[in-house]
Amino acid sequence: MNMRTVYVNGTYLPENEATISIFDRGFLMADGVYEVTSVLDGKLIDFAGHAKRLERSLNELDMPHPDCLPDLLDIHRELVRLNGIEEGMIYLQITRGAPGDRDFAFPDPATCTPTVVLFTQNKPGLANSPVAKTGIKVISVADQRWARRDIKTVQLLYPSMGKMMAKAAGVDDAWMVEDGMVTEGTSNNAYIVKGNTIITRHLGNEILHGITRAAVLRFAHEAQMQVEERSFSIAEAQAADEAFITSASMFVMPVVEIDGAAVGTGTPGPVAARLREIYLDESRKVAV
Amino acid sequence: MNMRTVYVNGTYLPENEATISIFDRGFLMADGVYEVTSVLDGKLIDFAGHAKRLERSLNELDMPHPDCLPDLLDIHRELVRLNGIEEGMIYLQITRGAPGDRDFAFPDPATCTPTVVLFTQNKPGLANSPVAKTGIKVISVADQRWARRDIKTVQLLYPSMGKMMAKAAGVDDAWMVEDGMVTEGTSNNAYIVKGNTIITRHLGNEILHGITRAAVLRFAHEAQMQVEERSFSIAEAQAADEAFITSASMFVMPVVEIDGAAVGTGTPGPVAARLREIYLDESRKVAV
Repeated sequence: MNMRTVYVNGTYLPENEATISIFDRGFLMADGVYEVTSVLDGKLIDFAGHAKRLERSLNELDMPHPDCLPDLLDIHRELVRLNGIEEGMIYLQITRGAPGDRDFAFPDPATCTPTVVLFTQNKPGLANSPVAKTGIKVISVADQRWARRDIKTVQLLYPSMGKMMAKAAGVDDAWMVEDGMVTEGTSNNAYIVKGNTIITRHLGNEILHGITRAAVLRFAHEAQMQVEERSFSIAEAQAADEAFITSASMFVMPVVEIDGAAVGTGTPGPVAARLREIYLDESRKVAV
Repeated sequence: MNMRTVYVNGTYLPENEATISIFDRGFLMADGVYEVTSVLDGKLIDFAGHAKRLERSLNELDMPHPDCLPDLLDIHRELVRLNGIEEGMIYLQITRGAPGDRDFAFPDPATCTPTVVLFTQNKPGLANSPVAKTGIKVISVADQRWARRDIKTVQLLYPSMGKMMAKAAGVDDAWMVEDGMVTEGTSNNAYIVKGNTIITRHLGNEILHGITRAAVLRFAHEAQMQVEERSFSIAEAQAADEAFITSASMFVMPVVEIDGAAVGTGTPGPVAARLREIYLDESRKVAV
């Protein structure tokens, strides 16, 4: 990989010089939030949605807004430019900063400045991923995360473990299950299709309020598809006509197998394919 | 505060130069574990217990053992010496390291070296804390943490939030409650005393397996006190004769009020006081 230029607290610098203090609360206490925004045609997809959710995450945690918050669009664009990204992602993380010492209590915002880090991930071919033609396979795992998954925090150890469980099982991802019902994937929202109806879990503290989810459901409504926002079980998903996931970096991705059982024909279905096409087309039109 | 000398990946350096990569998984994904060891008389308390639990945390997360693992006692002692610590704490954190890019999947241990960070916290008077004479007050909050609290990970955002809820309520700490039963404090194990019986939650995934807890229960047995390892509710705690907490940095600390209700006489009781004394005496004798 070529050396990237990244952003740390107001400075653009080479990635191998990009560091934070060991006292940063993002490092010591997972006291940080993040967003990942996709880039297509060198432009940002759904940026306004990500910026809005970021602000909500900060507010839910009483985390001070960094001074650069109004400049985030410019910073994203500058990183796209500096790194020549045509397709890929921009990762953004904000933490409560690095107080002089470790303490469970939040530091005084008057003396402790938030840490802001952004970096690019170059992914040529992201939109034309061949995986979209074959679909992904998932297993189910118990959802052992904390209770506030609607806040996009960096507490990603369990999703990481879920990804490794999937890998060990020879599949691509894991759907997490709580009280018998699917919450979401390790880094994506989960959907099934039965007849003409798209079913995905209702919003709440149990799942991330996906920016791609919101856009896809809007497009589904506009395309006259039925949408039911309710939870579903693994058994119901296995018996569905189709299944798929959405995320900022996967867009709409078909799921063709759940816990070893083929979903529908075991190949990507027409609803997921159509939603993927609509999402990519419409998002590119309004990309910034 | 004077400038501390800290340890980062094999190097002793001034705290203001102590940094880690922004790609460290401890920063991006809370993929790290930690320990806090107390220092009394310039010596380490319960070091062997902390070292053993650290190894268990690493193993539970399939985290590679850093090369310096056998040298941790020496590193702790060197930091004590360099910083002239008579009473205080040594904080130790290990993460899976900084791979070249962000990815949910664990990095290949062959190419990604764990990050090891240690620093001291100087706390003169730690053992003679006046708070032990007056006790602390707690409120109860819902336990919203992830399910594997037996692994000492840096996912400390919710305990931090709990500490802030306590602060907002004008008290010192929060006891977390799940399914009607107390799990533990934000950074300590919770106990009540009824008659001659000490009651504390049984071990499991729901609580940290406290090193101080293990020692205190051993001393309690040796002192002919009855010990019941079972869960208890806030109501039972409020009706108890005494309540207290244990942790590496608080040792044994009386709790005199729970959700506004005085426990027993509303002042520190004899069992907690005796256990604190025994713990400090016996631990000092075998400190390293």
